[in-house]
Amino acid sequence: MTSITVLSGGVGGATFLRGLLHGVRRGLLPGADRDAEVTVVANTADDIWLHGLKVCPDLDTVMYTLGEGIDPERGWGRRDETWSAKEELAAYGVEPTWFGLGDRDLATHLVRTQMLDAGYPLSQVTEALCRRWLFPTYGDSLRLLPMTDDRVETHIAIADPDSPSGRRVVHFQEYWVRLHAQVPAEAVIVVGLEDSSPGPGVIDAITDADLVVVPPSNPVVSVGTILGVPRVREALVAAKAPVVGLSPIVGGTHVRGMAHQLLTSLGVEVSAAAVGLHYGARTAGGVLDGWLVDTVDAATVDRVREGGLRCEAVPLLMTSPEATAEMAAAAVALVS
Amino acid sequence: MTSITVLSGGVGGATFLRGLLHGVRRGLLPGADRDAEVTVVANTADDIWLHGLKVCPDLDTVMYTLGEGIDPERGWGRRDETWSAKEELAAYGVEPTWFGLGDRDLATHLVRTQMLDAGYPLSQVTEALCRRWLFPTYGDSLRLLPMTDDRVETHIAIADPDSPSGRRVVHFQEYWVRLHAQVPAEAVIVVGLEDSSPGPGVIDAITDADLVVVPPSNPVVSVGTILGVPRVREALVAAKAPVVGLSPIVGGTHVRGMAHQLLTSLGVEVSAAAVGLHYGARTAGGVLDGWLVDTVDAATVDRVREGGLRCEAVPLLMTSPEATAEMAAAAVALVS
Repeated sequence: MTSITVLSGGVGGATFLRGLLHGVRRGLLPGADRDAEVTVVANTADDIWLHGLKVCPDLDTVMYTLGEGIDPERGWGRRDETWSAKEELAAYGVEPTWFGLGDRDLATHLVRTQMLDAGYPLSQVTEALCRRWLFPTYGDSLRLLPMTDDRVETHIAIADPDSPSGRRVVHFQEYWVRLHAQVPAEAVIVVGLEDSSPGPGVIDAITDADLVVVPPSNPVVSVGTILGVPRVREALVAAKAPVVGLSPIVGGTHVRGMAHQLLTSLGVEVSAAAVGLHYGARTAGGVLDGWLVDTVDAATVDRVREGGLRCEAVPLLMTSPEATAEMAAAAVALVS
Repeated sequence: MTSITVLSGGVGGATFLRGLLHGVRRGLLPGADRDAEVTVVANTADDIWLHGLKVCPDLDTVMYTLGEGIDPERGWGRRDETWSAKEELAAYGVEPTWFGLGDRDLATHLVRTQMLDAGYPLSQVTEALCRRWLFPTYGDSLRLLPMTDDRVETHIAIADPDSPSGRRVVHFQEYWVRLHAQVPAEAVIVVGLEDSSPGPGVIDAITDADLVVVPPSNPVVSVGTILGVPRVREALVAAKAPVVGLSPIVGGTHVRGMAHQLLTSLGVEVSAAAVGLHYGARTAGGVLDGWLVDTVDAATVDRVREGGLRCEAVPLLMTSPEATAEMAAAAVALVS
């Protein structure tokens, strides 16, 4: 196995990727070369323009995490961060004030925005940023690809009794960061998704891979949006490689983040089995061959298998790169 | 006297303005009401686009100085500044690295750039920024006007033996900040100046003032560029109010900044008298009625007077707002 492709969201995907890379480089993944190429297709639907700057939270979380620049406490943003610009923007009374735009982080958005303004597509901008963060350690063996170069932004419809329509639509970041997903999501509206095209290399990365992994990322607003880019789902269905996923739901709750309201808005039960079956078996028009659930969800393995998926229960808490590498190894083993 | 207009550059002009306002509000200026309106027409020719952001050093220095946000040690930029974004931009290898773009300062440029992108002219953007910095203290009695809403940028031609032409043209900020004006300026080229228009309120501020003051700012790249905006020089010549200037040159050297090379490039001798005569007497087609020189330059008073200007020698070192207020009072007295 010389090439692995991972469809990633932000914190969950990045944490998984760190463990996967740990496992690959140490020869812990059955059948995988130590120098196997890893390609990350990252969600960009939670991107947002803030203060005139293009912010790509998932791309940056993956980049900072794998480049050792992430703040380990928060799991997002830069370590040793300062917040002077944020304070000043608030002092000017400029909205929004709820987004955590750190000063170090700001430099990334400045470079990105200036390159976008100069006409470079997001994929090339991302490659340029990764020359700093990933290339020194991984060379060409790790690639970070935006799912699309097009502008795609997830919005969430929430109830709003003060609105004539009874609802209000907010950007996903506002729902997530300001509202902490504490109000029910009535609908998830991914603006621009249907008209988007896969970013350069995305389809090939799926078609040519020896293994495709769906990490424990948010199934709605991270993996779900990647799958919604035209031709991506079809590429997964047709891929020669096995496709294996790891449940972000452990014991009926999301390990990180807040998937409940979002799953509920799709009518999907908040359980490891239901999410696996929501992705579905490739033999039945879905995108997966195998689905790993946590040991606490062992009782649901049979239900998943009945849906046509290989399934095992293993510990799925990403407590360390070593533990996460074991999860990755179990995922590989499941579909080998 | 109910209205005073000041043509200002950055640090020198801002320091003078602080003293002038101190004097006005305490009734120390002969004939001036304590609630006299002060209008600042600020140089914008040293503006620069950096990392996709519009930076206006002179406007910001005036705004931060009068709004008590300036770093008192450096004389420019924000107090309690942090430099995280600058470090990160350098880590990305993004040029230029020599400009001191602090994190707090960055917020100002973000707000400004976003407003400019939204279509607001620089004058309205400046007014919006001043709502934070000046309005709480001064209300409508202090206005900060960019000399023009048009893009005007000063460039300096310097000798460069490696260039086929033997010279190279650099932005004024590069000459000033990176090269510390340590190489001779062969020419000052103010791109866009001839085609610029005075900003809203600029001509009226000169025409309707009871007093116009040229503070001890750089006569070439600060006051010189303001005078170069079409119709500004004519408005000064025709103004009903007296126009009085204070020498930035004390004892043959510039008190702050580095005017030598710039004056030399214009063929102007580096002396208090020569700068006053370079501005010239309104009775002889110039823009001044009076010119204050420092006591160390007392011997040159007669030479200035022979050029048609009123002239006195008083202490011109702006060591405190009080000392500066006395300078302002002497300037008023000179032309009253």
